[in-house]
Amino acid sequence: MLNADEAFRQVMTWCHALPTAERSLEESLGAILAEDVLADQDLPPFDKALVDGYALSSVDAGNGLRDFNVSQTIRAGKFPTDELITGQTARIMTGAPLPQGADSVIMWEHVETVNNDLIRLPVERLIKAGQNVLARGREISQGQVVLPKSLRLNGAAIGVLGSVGRSRVKIVPQPRIRIVPTGDELVEIDQQPGPAQIRNSNAYVLRSLIEQAGGLPEVLPIAKDDPESLSESLSAGLYADILIVTGGVSAGEADLVPDTLASLGVEPVFHKIRLKPGKPLWFGVRHSAEELGQKPVRKVLVFGLPGNPVSVIVNFLLFVKPAIMALRGISTDPVAHRTVPLAEAVENRDERPSYIPARLARRHDRIAADPVNWAGSNDLRGAALADGFILIPSGPCRLAAGSSVSFLPLLPS
Amino acid sequence: MLNADEAFRQVMTWCHALPTAERSLEESLGAILAEDVLADQDLPPFDKALVDGYALSSVDAGNGLRDFNVSQTIRAGKFPTDELITGQTARIMTGAPLPQGADSVIMWEHVETVNNDLIRLPVERLIKAGQNVLARGREISQGQVVLPKSLRLNGAAIGVLGSVGRSRVKIVPQPRIRIVPTGDELVEIDQQPGPAQIRNSNAYVLRSLIEQAGGLPEVLPIAKDDPESLSESLSAGLYADILIVTGGVSAGEADLVPDTLASLGVEPVFHKIRLKPGKPLWFGVRHSAEELGQKPVRKVLVFGLPGNPVSVIVNFLLFVKPAIMALRGISTDPVAHRTVPLAEAVENRDERPSYIPARLARRHDRIAADPVNWAGSNDLRGAALADGFILIPSGPCRLAAGSSVSFLPLLPS
Repeated sequence: MLNADEAFRQVMTWCHALPTAERSLEESLGAILAEDVLADQDLPPFDKALVDGYALSSVDAGNGLRDFNVSQTIRAGKFPTDELITGQTARIMTGAPLPQGADSVIMWEHVETVNNDLIRLPVERLIKAGQNVLARGREISQGQVVLPKSLRLNGAAIGVLGSVGRSRVKIVPQPRIRIVPTGDELVEIDQQPGPAQIRNSNAYVLRSLIEQAGGLPEVLPIAKDDPESLSESLSAGLYADILIVTGGVSAGEADLVPDTLASLGVEPVFHKIRLKPGKPLWFGVRHSAEELGQKPVRKVLVFGLPGNPVSVIVNFLLFVKPAIMALRGISTDPVAHRTVPLAEAVENRDERPSYIPARLARRHDRIAADPVNWAGSNDLRGAALADGFILIPSGPCRLAAGSSVSFLPLLPS
Repeated sequence: MLNADEAFRQVMTWCHALPTAERSLEESLGAILAEDVLADQDLPPFDKALVDGYALSSVDAGNGLRDFNVSQTIRAGKFPTDELITGQTARIMTGAPLPQGADSVIMWEHVETVNNDLIRLPVERLIKAGQNVLARGREISQGQVVLPKSLRLNGAAIGVLGSVGRSRVKIVPQPRIRIVPTGDELVEIDQQPGPAQIRNSNAYVLRSLIEQAGGLPEVLPIAKDDPESLSESLSAGLYADILIVTGGVSAGEADLVPDTLASLGVEPVFHKIRLKPGKPLWFGVRHSAEELGQKPVRKVLVFGLPGNPVSVIVNFLLFVKPAIMALRGISTDPVAHRTVPLAEAVENRDERPSYIPARLARRHDRIAADPVNWAGSNDLRGAALADGFILIPSGPCRLAAGSSVSFLPLLPS
């Protein structure tokens, strides 16, 4: 059976950034930029005052001039038309353009206001050219690359794009992910389950987790455990970048999912991994048109997750989430998982490496992982009370308090 | 002038969780639960098989019985009507209910299939009562609290709510945040700026950052720097839980924002903090109806941010984001900011503590903060190339490579 690291590597070999698309600036935070963005003008477009004060010539001040006549007031948004001549200054507001003849701004707290039309510089104060001024083109010159292709767009990058007038931008888009819940025992969550039925809560869990990971989820109706119904549902599920099927992937005779997927052209990559919970994970790929030489179809990654909701979450965090990130062009380094010290000793008696839910708590000035009280890999409620999962190596194994463990968060920090 | 820690404490004293509201399950990930949620039935509602295999009586097996007749096949979703009698077993699928007379399931890999109607247990295999079975009510009994009030809802909690049939749930809702950009120099980003104009990119930055922090942003039209227009815009901005005004809060004569806010009943709490960038921050509160004894108005927190986009981002991350979290009922501990070692020495010559943009990079098997090349607090582009900001204490100060610094991320991890 594959171990989880090897399964991760296999999934990643099938994940490539999606074809680029144009999106609005509002949809682009966190996305990978897919073009070099050029400045459409100098930034700033004029010599800009960085403080409220008086614009003047540092040469005048350097020549010993101390008294200046206030010839005009310049507010942000209006371009000054009158040039300053020797001995003149302009009252100027933050963000406003400097008038011709001025090369520096002195903060108004730093001058003596003789009267409304006359100010005096303190003798000891030096005025440097460019002081409190952001020179035209200081940030970027027109036509230069202001943001490079492949940059991940943070809030500041959104601001840069706005400042060069890009209300739409070419990025690696969010993958579309369809969820097909399977199982005769499932009913929708707003229905009353019959004596052998349970509510379809996994679809809600997946929808939440997908949105959190930056994917676009769509939940399809529950598929029944018969070949025809399943084939129809899975076929619809393949109109996506990723198809997630829940249930139907263990080895039971009702587990028709792998066979039905095969009949729809999905090639299995692996089935079952050495991991608890989440062992029955199934992964396959429907190849793209180029690979098949047939009618145009898109490549689809297919994850078959077990019905157990805790397995669904662990499999999602370990495999589906990094796949979503990779389709968005963002690489995730599993080695970079946060590690935390254990607040108390834990044991693993299972032969598989095991994820168990834990809370993060402050212990002796450090954040430590405190395992929650839980009943094993079927106890979704225990996981609901946790901040994330910690990884305990394959058993029999006992980790002492203070041991460093890998931490998989359930909510982004 | 207030230091940033004291300003943070003052903001926090005015932040309280919003009144609770009912929301759909889809909108509830990451929210604080505002009610005790009870189980509407036992979970699981029946003794459930955890594996594909054979259901049988551990007493039979304990009495030495090895051969069992397969009397029926039980699939998930159907309730078995026929009780097992001594010497009988049922073929059972994962998730299906156990028949009466059975108390354990043996995986089918672990039995010898003599023929379609007969299986044989290996002599050495022990069968324990409850083996591979999740007993009815093992997770929770009907009527018990399945999730407690005040829990923050992670993906597993969404699953628990779904499994007890809660498609709607009482939570602390997301705050509504209105943004009023001010300044005669601003034009919308899809317009061509005139000679003294710049594009209104701050509104886009704030909208992105607010969504990322779990708030509901709404950008109002650009307000002009005249008292009447400003009063109208700010008045509209107060129909929200938080109003963010950009521009107009330094000490210049065009900075009408504080006076106009005062005339609208917003009381100033502080103005200016010892911080670079972000010094001109203004914070005030419009009190609620109860406090004023007037017509019903809601309490509104008002942040006046400077026009400089880097200041906008630093002020947002340090003050507005924790306020949004607090209104959502989630406390943020500023002491819990991630710390990272410096990849190279940095200097601060400013008398204020300073945030500078840095990239996170792997150095000698650790993640370290590597300051980006940037031109100072007006350089939004430098911040666009960074993973976040690091805090350098008030200067003159030099931190050696390897020093531990506080890190403020620009994108969630």
